Parts: sequence; structure tokens; C-alpha cells
Amino acid sequence: MKNIRDLIRPNIANILPYPPGKPIEDVKRELGVKEVIKMASNENALGPSPKAVKAMKDALAGVNLYPDGNSYYLKQKLAEKLGVAMEEIIVGNGTDEVIRIITETFLNPGEEVVVAWPGFVIYSIATNVMSGSLKRTPLKNYTHDLEAMLNAVTDKTKLVFIANPNNPTGTMVDKDEVEMFMKKIPEDIIVVFDEAYYEYANGNFPQTIRYAKEGKNTIVLRTFSKIYGLAGLRVGYGIAQKEMVTEMNRIRQPFNVNRVAQSAAIAALDDKEHVEKSIVMNEEGKKYLYKEFDAMGLEYVRTSANFILVDIKRSGKEIYEKLLKEGVIVRPVDNYDLPNFLRVTICKPSENKKFIGSLKKVLGK
Amino acid sequence: MKNIRDLIRPNIANILPYPPGKPIEDVKRELGVKEVIKMASNENALGPSPKAVKAMKDALAGVNLYPDGNSYYLKQKLAEKLGVAMEEIIVGNGTDEVIRIITETFLNPGEEVVVAWPGFVIYSIATNVMSGSLKRTPLKNYTHDLEAMLNAVTDKTKLVFIANPNNPTGTMVDKDEVEMFMKKIPEDIIVVFDEAYYEYANGNFPQTIRYAKEGKNTIVLRTFSKIYGLAGLRVGYGIAQKEMVTEMNRIRQPFNVNRVAQSAAIAALDDKEHVEKSIVMNEEGKKYLYKEFDAMGLEYVRTSANFILVDIKRSGKEIYEKLLKEGVIVRPVDNYDLPNFLRVTICKPSENKKFIGSLKKVLGK
Repeated sequence: MKNIRDLIRPNIANILPYPPGKPIEDVKRELGVKEVIKMASNENALGPSPKAVKAMKDALAGVNLYPDGNSYYLKQKLAEKLGVAMEEIIVGNGTDEVIRIITETFLNPGEEVVVAWPGFVIYSIATNVMSGSLKRTPLKNYTHDLEAMLNAVTDKTKLVFIANPNNPTGTMVDKDEVEMFMKKIPEDIIVVFDEAYYEYANGNFPQTIRYAKEGKNTIVLRTFSKIYGLAGLRVGYGIAQKEMVTEMNRIRQPFNVNRVAQSAAIAALDDKEHVEKSIVMNEEGKKYLYKEFDAMGLEYVRTSANFILVDIKRSGKEIYEKLLKEGVIVRPVDNYDLPNFLRVTICKPSENKKFIGSLKKVLGK
Repeated sequence: MKNIRDLIRPNIANILPYPPGKPIEDVKRELGVKEVIKMASNENALGPSPKAVKAMKDALAGVNLYPDGNSYYLKQKLAEKLGVAMEEIIVGNGTDEVIRIITETFLNPGEEVVVAWPGFVIYSIATNVMSGSLKRTPLKNYTHDLEAMLNAVTDKTKLVFIANPNNPTGTMVDKDEVEMFMKKIPEDIIVVFDEAYYEYANGNFPQTIRYAKEGKNTIVLRTFSKIYGLAGLRVGYGIAQKEMVTEMNRIRQPFNVNRVAQSAAIAALDDKEHVEKSIVMNEEGKKYLYKEFDAMGLEYVRTSANFILVDIKRSGKEIYEKLLKEGVIVRPVDNYDLPNFLRVTICKPSENKKFIGSLKKVLGK
């Protein structure tokens, strides 16, 4: 009998599974720590919107029924909010799934995908699954170097992913840079703007939805996993020309977005107060952490998102392990070639404070 | 600029999206019918287990956090129940997703997938997405013809899907037939037993989990969407050798199973009473529907699942449309090359009765 390794597709043989932030349950179970805070996965520490919780409760009795495979009411609400047509929206089991749908729909074997590095690992997995070829362009000052990305484009390029703000660095490219990029990029290349942290960004942030309206081959990704506080339910979406959405729907799993998630997302869109509170908390937490990092003499990357990449000038993995024992989960980013950094989610004031206390302790400051 | 159709992968160009059962909301919206019952998607009409509802409620406050990507506690519970190791289980966003993970992991372009026809359309989409080649063998007496499936195997065959019980016919292949099949199938071919309706089957049903234990390349699929009443939450799973699961985990989306679903599924496994009640309801509903069909002179396929394929001897689509106006959603199966049949889920006594009344009316009986 053949070895199972001989049965798999050769191009997936070396894919490493995505390393998620450590769940609170795991830390409690493995380390016996009782009080654990999680600053590892850029969730909204305020919790879900109370309106969403109410909507979820109302949805529970009906979970024996399949979800609406068309996410009709959610798309209707999003369309209204974003000023696009329902047919220009595709909803997924998190944007993770929308990214997979994009490569499954458009990426032929050997075609190239241009991404920035360090950048989101999921683009790489999605590319490899479809036997595409990944081209990584280095960040410049921890920020997407759009000029370098343009230069990386060849006649084999099919897709470009621009995470804006970028994960794990938290940096953004602004409207003028994006405008220049869109003028120069060959029009048959599909440009994906992954805007998971959109609501946290400010300043001269580009409004990318309009490119699809102008007939450009762009896909804008947004999510309910970050500021909307619904990461556990898995809802993300993409906005593109109707014709692109039609093609992607061919291979979308028919019931990909669960029922509770659809109800929660609809309600969350109505809760402006929750979003505003979350932004205020994030701005205040950001200032506090900047101040504390400054006081400790630690460098960090100024963020446009709800997390901060901080340079601890020694093994991030080691400090991460030590922080775990203190009941604080942060994210080591050695797998992003940033071995001496940690990525920390901006959380509630008490959590930020606990983190700083624990960090001082384990760094011996 | 190229047409968008020129940008997509050629092998997905003709995939038709899966046609789901019509949601209750759609019928109410489109036809203005107030009271609607759904007998179209083989859900459990009893609803979710009360224990699961309780567990879901408890999970809601934590949906701002990503789900455990490893589904640790759910796999632990399943492993215990099934007598397998946790590492032999992969959990998905419904078995739909596990099927996609299987083809993405194992199916090289041009390799063949043997399925029965009429059979579940998702196998075909999953095959086409990975540029595989689908070989359909006709059912015999509405039942998988395992001998014909063996004969369809060539040296290019990679996967065989056996839906047991089969959808949309409700028939099963028994232990002896499967045993014979497994003896003859070349050992490098991966055999997938899709047992979504496992809990409803009785008689000499094969216990297929043991094949993986014997080192065979089998994957058994089970779901929480049917008897467990959690279709709306999306949880299905596969059981296979540890080495196969390890390979599939490379490309599994890291947070594929939502948090509420994991909690609900764990609780549902503890609710034996709900499962038993569901079986009793199904057996009684089956007898009632058989009797009524007999009285109406309609032929049907005897079922091992929670639905019945009934021969209405005229356009299923037409009768389906008429039933919609009566507030009864059933499933036309013309897309399964069964234009004169309807597939009807066995529901609660009152619903079965309403369906029979409406069917008599629209058939003019």
C-alpha cells in the first residue's frame, strides 16, 4: 500500500497549518492558570454588541433549519449601508473562506499571486492549495510597498492581495498611494483589498469600494470578526462587480454562513453605539500602551488597527511563553519572520494594564 | 479589458451553484404566504435538542472570541462516543466543507471520482473545483450499485463516494455489500462513506468506522445537521486514519467551525432522549406517509433516512410550485434527473398531515 503522503496533492505537501492564537481554554487546561486574558487574535475585548446577543438568542430555536444560503437579509442590510447592490456582495464563513473562494474561482496552476511580507499567512495557503505561485515583496517601514508590488507583477500575475491595515504590523497605505497603484496596475489583474480592520483606521484611508463601481477588477474584504465582535461566529464578506460575484457563487458552499451568524451580523450593523464605544476604547488603549512602551524603552509600530507590533529585542517566543504563565496570551510572530516582536491586541483598560504589569515582570523591568 | 468569464478557471465555468431547498423566509416574502412548513431539506422538524439550546445561550457572550480552531472538546466527546482517537477526527463547517477538504487534499487534476447517480450534487462540485473527472454509475433500484462502482474504477480513480443512506433516494447498502466492496476495491483508492442519515438507518447497516482502524483508506462522514437538529449551525465531521486527518488539516481553514456550533454539538451528543424521540417521530411519520401514498396510489422508494422520494407521475416542479402556494415546501428533484418525483422530509405529525392534504388538493385527488 502506498504511504498516505503519496496520496496527497504534491503542492499541499509542505503547507503548514495556520497557527492560531492560543485559545483561553487551552491555556487554562495546559498550564492550570485560572485567570486568562487573550490579546492574541485581535478580537474586540468589549464583547459582541448587546443587540447582536439579543438577535442570536432569538435565532437559537430555529437552528434545526439550514441557514439561508443566499444570506438575503444580511446582504440587503450591507448593500444599503455600503451603497452597493446585493448582487455585488458575497458572504463567507469568515473572510478566510472568501479568500479561498477567490483563489478557487480565479487562480489557475502556475499563475502568480503578489503579496507583501510579513503579511497574512492565509493568502499563502490559499495560493498553494490552488497550485499558484506566491511572490512576496518585503514591507518598507513595516508598510506595504505598493511600488515594489507593482514591480513584482509579471504577465503571469493573476491576483494581488493588499491587507489594509496590514496584519501583523498594523500599518496602512493611504488614499493617494492606492490611487497611484490602481492607475498603474494592469487592468486584468484582480486586486483584493483585505480591510478586516477598516473601522479602526483613520486619516486618509482609501475608499476602495468605488473601484468595482468603476468596472475595475477589485474585491474589497470586510469582516464581522473585528470591531463587530463576532469572530466566534464566522462572518466576512467581499464586495466586487456583480459578474465576479456570480462566478464566485458557483463554487461557494451552499450553506456556508450559519444562521446565528447571519442574525447577529444584521443586528450588529444597527448598533452604532457599540462600534463607537469600541473605537474610543481602542484609541485610549493605544495611547496607554504607546506611553507604557515608551516608558519601558520599547519600540513599536504605530498602528491603524486594534493591535500593536512591539519590538521586545529578544525572543518573542520565549516572552510569549512566560506571559502565558502569567495568564496573558499575546502573539509571537516568528512565523512572520519577526522573531523579536510580539503582536498585542489592544483590549480593555484593565487588561492592557495587566499585560503591561506582566510584561514588565517577565522582561525584568 | 478581458471579460470576467475569461479570468476564471476554465473548469469551474460550467459549475451550476447547488440549488438549496427554498428557505421559509423566501416563500413568505415572495408568495405572501403566512404559514409555511419546510419539508425540503431533511432537517429535524423536532427542532434542536433543548440541551443544545441551553449550551448555545451560554456561548453567546463569548462570540467576540475566535472559535477553538482545533474543536478540542467536541473532538474529545466524539472520540469517546465513537471509540476512536481525537486525531482521527476532522470537524468541518458542515460535511459540505469536509468533502471540499477531501478533494482539495487528495484530488489531482484529471484523477477520477466515482459516484452514484442520482446522488448528492456536492460531490460533483467538489470534483470540478479541483479539476477532477467525475464518473457517475447509475443506481439500481434507486440504490447504490456497488458492483457497477467497482467496475467503474480505473487506474486513474482516486476517490469513491458512497452516500449511505443515499440522497435523494433514501436507500441504503448493507453490511454484506459494503464488506464485499471493500474486499475488492484497490487499496490505494480513498473510499468516502457519507453517512449523514446514519442515525435514522436500521437493519444490517455497515459499521464503517472500523475500516480506518484496519488501516484502510476510508473516510466516514457524519453530521449534526440531520437528527441532531443543528443544520443552521454547520457542523459535520470525518473519521479516518490519523495520517489522513493530519494531511487534511494542512488546508483546513483555521477557524472553520464556529463557537456556538461547537458548544451546541457537544451538548447535543449528551441528549439521548432528543435523538430517541426523533427516531420515534420519524418511524411513525414514515408509516403514516407510506399509508397515505398507498391510498393515493402513489409509488415511493422505501427509505432508510428521514425523507421519502415519491413518484407523482407528473412534473415535480409544477407540483412543487403549487405546494408552495399552499405553504408547503418540498423538494423537486429534476436536477437529479428525477423530473416526476418529489423528495419530502418526514416531519411532525401535523406537518405530515398538512402536506398530505395539500398534495391531495394540488393533485386533484
